[in-house]
Amino acid sequence: MNQYAPPISDLQFVLHDVLKLSESGLPGHDELDRDFTAAILDAAGKLASDVLAPLNATGDRQGCRLENGIVRTPDGFKEAFGLIREGGWPALDCDPEYGGQGMPYVVSLAAGEMFVAANMAFNMYQGLTHGAYSAIHSHGTQAQKEMYLPRLASCEWTGTMNLTEPHAGTDLGLLRTKAEPQEDGSYLITGQKIFISAGDHDMAENVIHLVLAKAPGGGEGTKGISLFIVPKFLVGEDGRIGEHNAVSVGALEEKMGIHGNATCVMNYDGAKGWLLGELHKGMRAMFTMMNEARVGVGLQGYAIASGAYQNAVGYARERLQGRAPTGAQNQAGPADPLIVHPDIRRSLMEQKSFVEGARALVMWAGHLIDRHTRTGDADADGLVSLMTPIIKGFLTDKGFDATVLAQQVYGGHGYIEEQGMSQFVRDARITSIYEGANGVQALDLVGRKLAADGGKHVMAFFRDLISFIKEHEGNAALKADFLDPLKAASKDMQAAATFFMEKGLKNPDEALSGSYDFMHLSGHVVLGLMWARMAVAAQAALDAGEGDRAFLETKLHTGRYYMARQLPATAVHLARIRSGAAPVMALPPERF
Amino acid sequence: MNQYAPPISDLQFVLHDVLKLSESGLPGHDELDRDFTAAILDAAGKLASDVLAPLNATGDRQGCRLENGIVRTPDGFKEAFGLIREGGWPALDCDPEYGGQGMPYVVSLAAGEMFVAANMAFNMYQGLTHGAYSAIHSHGTQAQKEMYLPRLASCEWTGTMNLTEPHAGTDLGLLRTKAEPQEDGSYLITGQKIFISAGDHDMAENVIHLVLAKAPGGGEGTKGISLFIVPKFLVGEDGRIGEHNAVSVGALEEKMGIHGNATCVMNYDGAKGWLLGELHKGMRAMFTMMNEARVGVGLQGYAIASGAYQNAVGYARERLQGRAPTGAQNQAGPADPLIVHPDIRRSLMEQKSFVEGARALVMWAGHLIDRHTRTGDADADGLVSLMTPIIKGFLTDKGFDATVLAQQVYGGHGYIEEQGMSQFVRDARITSIYEGANGVQALDLVGRKLAADGGKHVMAFFRDLISFIKEHEGNAALKADFLDPLKAASKDMQAAATFFMEKGLKNPDEALSGSYDFMHLSGHVVLGLMWARMAVAAQAALDAGEGDRAFLETKLHTGRYYMARQLPATAVHLARIRSGAAPVMALPPERF
Repeated sequence: MNQYAPPISDLQFVLHDVLKLSESGLPGHDELDRDFTAAILDAAGKLASDVLAPLNATGDRQGCRLENGIVRTPDGFKEAFGLIREGGWPALDCDPEYGGQGMPYVVSLAAGEMFVAANMAFNMYQGLTHGAYSAIHSHGTQAQKEMYLPRLASCEWTGTMNLTEPHAGTDLGLLRTKAEPQEDGSYLITGQKIFISAGDHDMAENVIHLVLAKAPGGGEGTKGISLFIVPKFLVGEDGRIGEHNAVSVGALEEKMGIHGNATCVMNYDGAKGWLLGELHKGMRAMFTMMNEARVGVGLQGYAIASGAYQNAVGYARERLQGRAPTGAQNQAGPADPLIVHPDIRRSLMEQKSFVEGARALVMWAGHLIDRHTRTGDADADGLVSLMTPIIKGFLTDKGFDATVLAQQVYGGHGYIEEQGMSQFVRDARITSIYEGANGVQALDLVGRKLAADGGKHVMAFFRDLISFIKEHEGNAALKADFLDPLKAASKDMQAAATFFMEKGLKNPDEALSGSYDFMHLSGHVVLGLMWARMAVAAQAALDAGEGDRAFLETKLHTGRYYMARQLPATAVHLARIRSGAAPVMALPPERF
Repeated sequence: MNQYAPPISDLQFVLHDVLKLSESGLPGHDELDRDFTAAILDAAGKLASDVLAPLNATGDRQGCRLENGIVRTPDGFKEAFGLIREGGWPALDCDPEYGGQGMPYVVSLAAGEMFVAANMAFNMYQGLTHGAYSAIHSHGTQAQKEMYLPRLASCEWTGTMNLTEPHAGTDLGLLRTKAEPQEDGSYLITGQKIFISAGDHDMAENVIHLVLAKAPGGGEGTKGISLFIVPKFLVGEDGRIGEHNAVSVGALEEKMGIHGNATCVMNYDGAKGWLLGELHKGMRAMFTMMNEARVGVGLQGYAIASGAYQNAVGYARERLQGRAPTGAQNQAGPADPLIVHPDIRRSLMEQKSFVEGARALVMWAGHLIDRHTRTGDADADGLVSLMTPIIKGFLTDKGFDATVLAQQVYGGHGYIEEQGMSQFVRDARITSIYEGANGVQALDLVGRKLAADGGKHVMAFFRDLISFIKEHEGNAALKADFLDPLKAASKDMQAAATFFMEKGLKNPDEALSGSYDFMHLSGHVVLGLMWARMAVAAQAALDAGEGDRAFLETKLHTGRYYMARQLPATAVHLARIRSGAAPVMALPPERF
């Protein structure tokens, strides 16, 4: 049975030593000192390790069942969901006006990391509800807000996103689901949606579906799409549950992983729905959910890797095999533990340096989101929108790779389901696929975000990066190990962006053939920046004689691994990008 | 349902245009002209596509069942195994003296690729039998050969390898299974073995287990290990099946994939066994099986990727989504097929250029093995022994990555079990783990093979590589696209080897911290060499106006992709290697 130890010190280090939350000057942040966040994170961590982690294997083995049209979740899920709800966790960062606790988003991400690492499939019920909450909070009428927000914030009701149809995934312009306007201002929704995560279950009294559909008069393609609120049970004006809406679960998908989450085929047969936001502007409202969901999926990417990593370390410390190449370390035993072997350490350091860098990136993004929502800082918003495809695409690809590395540490035992390492890999695999497959993220980054607002945000990023390097490269303790590699990597990123500008305007294939590599190149640069920032913070604490010396030195060692061993990947991504469109586009389709 | 189209033209190209089998001067090879191998490959391909491929999903869904101590294989497996046997496929390259057909090993690898691509779990029953055949052929007494070889060659009986125990995987010195000598010259074998592929089933009348165990007087560690033949059913001198030996299936493992193959816990409770080869020299006999098995697992790595790739191409041609960035290609339809998108092409070219390069490598290795076994050429043997960990480690890692890419092409549909893409990924995952986890392959390569015979084999490889480049770099059509990148990559490989020599002798951690990267670096160089050789062959045929022009041009385009986009990875592997042991070894075990 896998175990989970909440990484409280690591989270606290990012929140306070790196992001300096309570000194950030954001409204409501001055109270967020170490003790305050420690209390929240300790409580969340305890729930994650004691309640959610033990249910992770159960969820995988049992999966969800469709019984007479009703989805049954695995044993223990309902009780655990009750504890999540009682603790007020879903409402942590929600609006106090609607029952929320008004915490910064970054704090809810920190708690969320632990919930996801302990049990990703379970946490999705809550995560999707948060997305629906945000969409209604941003786009709902006052009446809709009053009806839905308090109940979604509490997870008394849960939410879903209904985008995909059998023939239409990324290309939402092909949607066929129809919305017919009724005299009372409502719509009748008819169509089939697939891959609906948390589409139905037995843990809440209602499910609020947000559904993309085409209402008359909207024109072709994505322009004709609107977003609708379609509750599973119709509700009276007092919020009391009424009759069952004409929406049903057609089937549960059999998936590679996340078995504990109900992935539903949803059939809408003239179900009653209400417009959310403006007519024919559903894509915009949908993106409110999507952008939040994409940061959340990036978080899943590294969080699940962190759970897998912890188990791999445990196994590597206990399993005896062979002797250290420099001489026996465990003289009294029949063999040394795996962890003495350089190649096992390579694997563990690869995982560890990724997870900690990724954590800093997601928390930084959360902090920028708070800056934007609390102060209206448009630059912070622009930077997050640039980072979102990188967070989603890079952290999920690398997170998946990390779970594979963790499984590999177990040798043959890793392939046996009983050990739980296969589940990490199978669960992690979805993160590169859903909420926009990673190829779509790369397209979003290169085709849209780089050039957005005249390239303003990427230029601001480079400017901040260069001034960070200048500010710190006088620090002899950090220059060679951190600042110099970061400078080299950022030059690769700039060279790639320049290549796109020179070639891509004439022929978009020249840029898009390198989009995936650019997403990874940028991901490495951003994680390199995170590591450099963590190194500055750790070195400052060491110089000041503050904090836990061994912890801070471990941070520096781990960062050095990232800079020496992972960051050099930027060079190969640049070489691939510069090879241009020809190798990618040469073959006619029939010759593949 | 996934389909499989046998890649006959690609195999023929490697066998005849690249390896020039019938002109190789090897005994028995002069008859192997194009028509001859085409007949064999067509028949094997037909069996693969018509019989084995349709059973692949069945095997995954049903798995094997243990019923009253007897393993039941999935529906249809027994009948298919009968067809494999009737066709004489298991005996293709076996010794005619023992019922074999005496074909070169390379021809059996070519047929094997198709069997594996169509149904990997199924083909393992036959593959392990071949390993047992080889071990007995090399190390058995005349009586053992006469008893077992004809029946293993025909798969009337099948074979297994019993190495691993619960506490002892890679570190075989820790084995506890005991062999007690009896007065009649036999041994009684007692102990538990785990992860025994094809350990039992209902498709053959007997299973011949080759079991590593410790007999008295052999000393500590691997020195005390001997190899024993332990039949499931004891056999009379006439080969007639007698009573059940004291060996039983303790359990079937629940695995991430290869569900169609029975992975058994085998309990030996004083089972009767007979020494194979010399007493206390079991490791040597075992390595006969292991080396063959490792090339076979490398083949699995790319073969399963080839099956996944074919399906990804099919999906990319059919699924409509978005428009080509340079303008609509499918004007009449609501959207363009996925294959117009540069990033989808990047993924497909990545897979295709890997699979075809890997195929050439495995066939080249098979040809070298034939050279050694048919002419006693020790240099060929040395080169194969150097290539074996690269074939096993690199091709399985990259093959797994390729199945993940193929699954990704399907978007959300790839995550649904029904589509069969998850199975490719789950099945492929074992190949990096079994027959020596890939970290062990890297250790074998850097810790043993590089320095073997005074470094003779790696020096011979570099010499051949350099003379190949010199021979062809005057070819203007190939120089910039093929020879120059190969030269650059081979310099990276030489630089890495030099780093190991300079640093590794003083401190083995300096070399072993880079062993995994060296395995990948070498893999890229070797695949680069294969692509350069294929390009030379394709260009020569084009210049001579021979062969299928479109096919040959596709080869050149695909090779250019590999050289431009995959080969540059050598630089980052070199950078990682040169960062040495410090980043890997810095942390004390308790700080992970």
